Amino acid sequence: MDVEQYMTGLGRAARTASRQVAASSTAARNEALLATRDALDGARAALAEANAGDMERGRSRGLDAPLLDRLELTPARIDTMLEGLAQVAALPDPVGSITDLNTRPSGIQVGRMRVPLGVIGIIYESRPNVTVEAASLCLKAGNATILRGGSEALASNCAIAACLTRGLEAAGLPAAAVQVVETADRAAVSQLITMPDYVDVIVPRGGKGLIERISAEAKVPVIKHLDGVCHVYIDDGADEEMALAIAVNAKTQRYGTCNTMETLLVAQSMAAGNLPRLAAAFAAAGVELRGCEQTCALLPDAIPATEDDWHEEYLGPVLAVKVVSGLDEAIAHINTYSSLHTDAIVTRDHGRAMRFLREVDSSSVMVNASTRFADGFEYGLGAEIGISTDKLHARGPVGLEGLTSRKYVVLGAGQVRT
Amino acid sequence: MDVEQYMTGLGRAARTASRQVAASSTAARNEALLATRDALDGARAALAEANAGDMERGRSRGLDAPLLDRLELTPARIDTMLEGLAQVAALPDPVGSITDLNTRPSGIQVGRMRVPLGVIGIIYESRPNVTVEAASLCLKAGNATILRGGSEALASNCAIAACLTRGLEAAGLPAAAVQVVETADRAAVSQLITMPDYVDVIVPRGGKGLIERISAEAKVPVIKHLDGVCHVYIDDGADEEMALAIAVNAKTQRYGTCNTMETLLVAQSMAAGNLPRLAAAFAAAGVELRGCEQTCALLPDAIPATEDDWHEEYLGPVLAVKVVSGLDEAIAHINTYSSLHTDAIVTRDHGRAMRFLREVDSSSVMVNASTRFADGFEYGLGAEIGISTDKLHARGPVGLEGLTSRKYVVLGAGQVRT
Repeated sequence: MDVEQYMTGLGRAARTASRQVAASSTAARNEALLATRDALDGARAALAEANAGDMERGRSRGLDAPLLDRLELTPARIDTMLEGLAQVAALPDPVGSITDLNTRPSGIQVGRMRVPLGVIGIIYESRPNVTVEAASLCLKAGNATILRGGSEALASNCAIAACLTRGLEAAGLPAAAVQVVETADRAAVSQLITMPDYVDVIVPRGGKGLIERISAEAKVPVIKHLDGVCHVYIDDGADEEMALAIAVNAKTQRYGTCNTMETLLVAQSMAAGNLPRLAAAFAAAGVELRGCEQTCALLPDAIPATEDDWHEEYLGPVLAVKVVSGLDEAIAHINTYSSLHTDAIVTRDHGRAMRFLREVDSSSVMVNASTRFADGFEYGLGAEIGISTDKLHARGPVGLEGLTSRKYVVLGAGQVRT
Repeated sequence: MDVEQYMTGLGRAARTASRQVAASSTAARNEALLATRDALDGARAALAEANAGDMERGRSRGLDAPLLDRLELTPARIDTMLEGLAQVAALPDPVGSITDLNTRPSGIQVGRMRVPLGVIGIIYESRPNVTVEAASLCLKAGNATILRGGSEALASNCAIAACLTRGLEAAGLPAAAVQVVETADRAAVSQLITMPDYVDVIVPRGGKGLIERISAEAKVPVIKHLDGVCHVYIDDGADEEMALAIAVNAKTQRYGTCNTMETLLVAQSMAAGNLPRLAAAFAAAGVELRGCEQTCALLPDAIPATEDDWHEEYLGPVLAVKVVSGLDEAIAHINTYSSLHTDAIVTRDHGRAMRFLREVDSSSVMVNASTRFADGFEYGLGAEIGISTDKLHARGPVGLEGLTSRKYVVLGAGQVRT
């Protein structure tokens, strides 16, 4: 198989389909989503068979348990996929809205129309449910999609793709609006990320290594989410109960998520009174503390932190703790070590809350709330394709809006420029 | 001089300054702009001397007349720079506004705050007035800027930079908020576009070759404007006088601008009745026509167009003309050959107007108006740093808003995630 030719073919078909999807009605796109749901529901046996094959090959290749878990399409996961399709169909259509329409002195009216991005390439690991999640969001936002999942999930993804095709066709939309790359050849990824004529943006989902590699090699824009080194800062005079609840929730509610706190910053004035209580709560939860010098002086069980700890996304029951002189040092620390993901302050002081919101350069900044809220569902986006730690285009959780852009529309009555 | 070390030094200083500018008050940034204006006004003699040196070196190196013209800082150009600074100071501050603040079922309030991008690198040719224009817009939007103008303008740019420094210092802002690269070494550009730790976005201004080279080599996002292959489509049943006025204005009002029409599309039904009158008007203006087969059959003086003509940005008194069967073919032609800049339809039909707006995939789409309106001032942005033909982040004329992004803010009262 000539991978370059194969991928160019997918790209060309996607570009053509993207024009048709962009021009399609909201009703047609919703119908495609619901017809895909019905097709998946009717194909449970075929999905189970394809997935069993992937699982068997995965086991024989020695995939570890977490990978096998993510690869598995259980009946419950299929239910979740079906519910997701109905939820996306129910979301408001972002495409076509015209806002900010103003009349200019020349007499022209100038406004902005929300439009699809065009063709979106999704690169992800061996989680077949992502195929449906990503395709449905991109389609709802009027885009065509090329999906490249992990090769271990190829049979499952092809079975899902057949259902997507049936859904699209039932709604009169082109089958090429959603295409799954049906080769395990890694060259397909290199090709997908270097076809600016056919692909408008790449959304990689997976580990930091994958995303860094794709970003470095891509010749099209990448909406990327590298890592989540999130902070909670307990400000001078903060409500102690609130600080305890937020810090414990931000760290322990789930360890492996990108919006989990990795470093706790405590104002000098609060350290002696609060760190021992915080340490007791973390000890009870089995969280290891790595502290700065002042922290270790107050907490004999804490391990001395090294410079690396301030950069670290532990994704596990470990927390770095630093005592800071106050807000200025907290903001400086965060702007140095944060991954621009999510950072929170616990405070009673309005002025310092506003300074934190304004001056911390992260995609989500929070006052008196757990960093764990940084999530498309919690923010009311309906769903998310990922969380962007970039500064341009979309920052933070990326929902339908982040899969569109705005162009200018000008409405005239024959005006010419003088 | 170690260019890498020099540029890293500028980058590090810009990053630090960007935090201070982002946190600064609107009043301080406006004061810096107005103090820069006063400093430039008081430095007219020094500016004239520096510029005379650049001009003399340019002449002795054999720069051609258009380059020398762009290089010259005439008193009138300095006046325009001063007016520009006052205009930018008078624009509303985009930074800090919080919109879309909604309360979620969890009780948290989620909104979006407009914030500066951080550090912006501007790469441009030998036009010293761009130094002030670009720096003032970036500063107003709360960013730090590193400016790399053409080496022929180095003395002029350094003289301008001294005034910018005085303006910043008068307002208590860090001098490193605006830095001019004071070396003619080309390695400085390569360094500037590959420092993601210190530069958030590059805005290149200049010819297509420069911009393509920078985009290919950059390791940070680029807001780019490649070319303007703009179309006017005269629809079936269009007002003939309006079509004539718009077509002539879009082509002949200025030839060298990116929003000038380069290809005219005429609906089959309109060709015989209108092309001869259009041709007479273009002949009177000295515009050469290159037509499709049907055009040439109607206009004996037209030159047969080749495939290259449909791609061409003439930037001069040449126009490609094509007869199309109707709206579908017009949209298909535009989406194939347009540079995603600006395209217009002249029509009386509402449905076709709306389809054109929706389906033409360009940064500005117009109904019954000249493409020449695609401009930040005409759109009411106050000023523009360029016109983006990208799809992500900013499309079309880029004003202050395009030099900012939006982050999420979450306001809680101690909420944790359950």
